[in-house]
Amino acid sequence: MNVDLNPIGYVSSPYLKKEDAPRQGRLTETEAEIVIDEQYLPGLFRVEEKKHLFVLCWFDRADRSVLRTTPPHNPVEHGVFATRSPNRPNPVSLSLVDVVDITGNTIRVRGLEALDGTPVLDIKPYSREIDCPE
Amino acid sequence: MNVDLNPIGYVSSPYLKKEDAPRQGRLTETEAEIVIDEQYLPGLFRVEEKKHLFVLCWFDRADRSVLRTTPPHNPVEHGVFATRSPNRPNPVSLSLVDVVDITGNTIRVRGLEALDGTPVLDIKPYSREIDCPE
Repeated sequence: MNVDLNPIGYVSSPYLKKEDAPRQGRLTETEAEIVIDEQYLPGLFRVEEKKHLFVLCWFDRADRSVLRTTPPHNPVEHGVFATRSPNRPNPVSLSLVDVVDITGNTIRVRGLEALDGTPVLDIKPYSREIDCPE
Repeated sequence: MNVDLNPIGYVSSPYLKKEDAPRQGRLTETEAEIVIDEQYLPGLFRVEEKKHLFVLCWFDRADRSVLRTTPPHNPVEHGVFATRSPNRPNPVSLSLVDVVDITGNTIRVRGLEALDGTPVLDIKPYSREIDCPE
């Protein structure tokens, strides 16, 4: 299924290569920025009212051929759909982040483990009502 | 950014057209099925150990040109990135679902509001550690 993904912006982060990135950004205090392209700025209206966002990125440096993997913290083989590995057939990442600041077209967040330059596909507000099992 | 998305399967649901779909599947008891393509079955290994999954779909019937919208339950204009509207520049949906049953290549779930035939891009296990703000 050939599709035009239109990145709405890019990640600016201290992680320049895979070895730098933590297992899960949520578990660190590191901050990163999402720089939104001018043409998508109208879509940010009222995002500043949200404390927590889901950020979906296209992990362009992932290995899309992997179907089985052994997570580092749980050394048992799993199917990729039972893990949060970046390597999967469609490497769309999902990160829950805390909003630190929004200035102009830049959203400063805590909890994003994406590599510097990663294309951002979407931002969604976290909703306890629909995103929490209990 | 032209990309080959490789749907790992399709949704089989009672919602045949947009007017049928609830505002949020999470708020209903309706069940739906995710039918995984044979070639991606190795990726399901150990998914049966998970109670809650995030399902990411490609909402192929969404309007990708929309940047501002007025949610039905909150009649104030918002940027799409401050809403969960299916209409957005990259219509990747995010649904937290409960696993009801897995048999062969079919995952039966509760809480998925996708239309029948919607391509599924990814499945990720829910993790309280990284997907919950508190």
